Amino acid sequence: MSNESSTSKQIEELKRVSQTLAFNGTLSQYSHYSQHNNCDMRFAIYLPPHATGAGIEGKLENVPVIYWLSGLSCTDENFMQKAGALKMAAQLGIAIVAPDTSPRGEDVPDDPDKAYDFGLGAGFYLNATQPPFDRNYQMYDYILKELIPAVEASFAVSSKKAISGHSMGGHGALTIGLRNPEVFTSISAFSPICNPVECPWGIKAFTHYLGDNTDTWTMYDASHLIKKANIKTPILIDQGADDSFLKSELKPESLLKAALINDYTIQLNMRPGYDHSYYFISSFIEEHIVFHAQFLQAV
Amino acid sequence: MSNESSTSKQIEELKRVSQTLAFNGTLSQYSHYSQHNNCDMRFAIYLPPHATGAGIEGKLENVPVIYWLSGLSCTDENFMQKAGALKMAAQLGIAIVAPDTSPRGEDVPDDPDKAYDFGLGAGFYLNATQPPFDRNYQMYDYILKELIPAVEASFAVSSKKAISGHSMGGHGALTIGLRNPEVFTSISAFSPICNPVECPWGIKAFTHYLGDNTDTWTMYDASHLIKKANIKTPILIDQGADDSFLKSELKPESLLKAALINDYTIQLNMRPGYDHSYYFISSFIEEHIVFHAQFLQAV
Repeated sequence: MSNESSTSKQIEELKRVSQTLAFNGTLSQYSHYSQHNNCDMRFAIYLPPHATGAGIEGKLENVPVIYWLSGLSCTDENFMQKAGALKMAAQLGIAIVAPDTSPRGEDVPDDPDKAYDFGLGAGFYLNATQPPFDRNYQMYDYILKELIPAVEASFAVSSKKAISGHSMGGHGALTIGLRNPEVFTSISAFSPICNPVECPWGIKAFTHYLGDNTDTWTMYDASHLIKKANIKTPILIDQGADDSFLKSELKPESLLKAALINDYTIQLNMRPGYDHSYYFISSFIEEHIVFHAQFLQAV
Repeated sequence: MSNESSTSKQIEELKRVSQTLAFNGTLSQYSHYSQHNNCDMRFAIYLPPHATGAGIEGKLENVPVIYWLSGLSCTDENFMQKAGALKMAAQLGIAIVAPDTSPRGEDVPDDPDKAYDFGLGAGFYLNATQPPFDRNYQMYDYILKELIPAVEASFAVSSKKAISGHSMGGHGALTIGLRNPEVFTSISAFSPICNPVECPWGIKAFTHYLGDNTDTWTMYDASHLIKKANIKTPILIDQGADDSFLKSELKPESLLKAALINDYTIQLNMRPGYDHSYYFISSFIEEHIVFHAQFLQAV
């Protein structure tokens, strides 16, 4: 009973902000209050026809979900608008959920210089411990303890789920996925920040969010986490070889090296000529959806 | 010889603004000075692998082109970012060119109220006759006499071309296509303004650009042009049935009625549940590319 009433509460709290039809499924934005982030959060959800009753014979199916975590400066909208993912999601019967990249609101502290790489739009999918950021920047708990339960209580989705993301969101997908192998069937990333404790973006953000004690940082660093992973969740990574952030910020070689130490095989595709943009993502997103589909048992 | 030197001049004048790889082809933005519009104009061009030497065996082919005209408030970027068209263009070996929707610049007159439906971002693909707009708003001539020659002189494209667009750009595709049947193999549109002389958007724009004599308006109205078309270029139109502009601004029934008078068969797909957005376009853009491909002899 307590579960049911908590479920009802979550359903009530989701407020639909927009809805549009795409590939005969529905793309919607919802806002809900986050107890962890102490602010309203918005997310986008694409439900394929199977999950809206618009599929074959109007049958309503509980579909698996891919959670997509976006990169620095993005919102819940970028992926849905630019990735070109919805066609394949509609075809295979997979939902996609894209949360915002940070808490938002007038009371939410930001980078004093309003830089793009820290604060608003740059939550780094961790739980901040340092004031003033600890009051709102609890994106790790928000994803696992609020967003996923709200989605599973409110829509025609199953409990099968995968996680993916781009850049800072690739870091989020890898770290959340590696730390929760019982939750996600598979992990993928485009151009992820693979070793944030060793790159300028990560050092800046982790110093502000987590403090100077770098021992607390490694739980949010994929290259550290992959060394001690017991369960080896399948991982697919695509990286543009002409990405201007490759050497200074992304460091896929660190992740590959760490994975080898643990006999953890990851599929890393270096793509000649591709950059850090959504045009790169759109070029290979269907391969990622098909990759996840085999583990989500959606094909 | 004079042709060659004019060709060289056009090549020289194109300045590349950006370039990125997408589906193994190149997406670039170029700017060039427009003699008709008296300002710099920017356009985007997607070249499939066939036209960049990245195709099978590195062979360089001259590919056909689809010219895409965007809607109110858009630039050369919206279609490339949001339509999800590049995959099929890459696959079939078709280039896509997307011009801006109006002249731009400090000296270019705009709507006094900065409204989205007239002035900057709202050139309506016509040649203005009324001051102060006549100095810059010559989009009809710009497309036909400057953009197309510049593209054909500068890239690995053939002379085969089709035209398509959305909303105001659907109006542009229909009117430019119907008036130049020797130029375009096929015409398509999403949610086009079909009868601008009878809708608020059209009346406002045409009054300012063309003056009060409505006799001069009909050469930019697809529902008038289709009645007297001798050559019946194939036309495909997709229209969302839940488009909020359908009844007041778009009026596909006027075009259909006019086409019937001239025994001109157009394929008009009314799509239940779809709205005016790029999610609608993305849901059906591949069908439009395949439609044009059959006439461009690209498949």
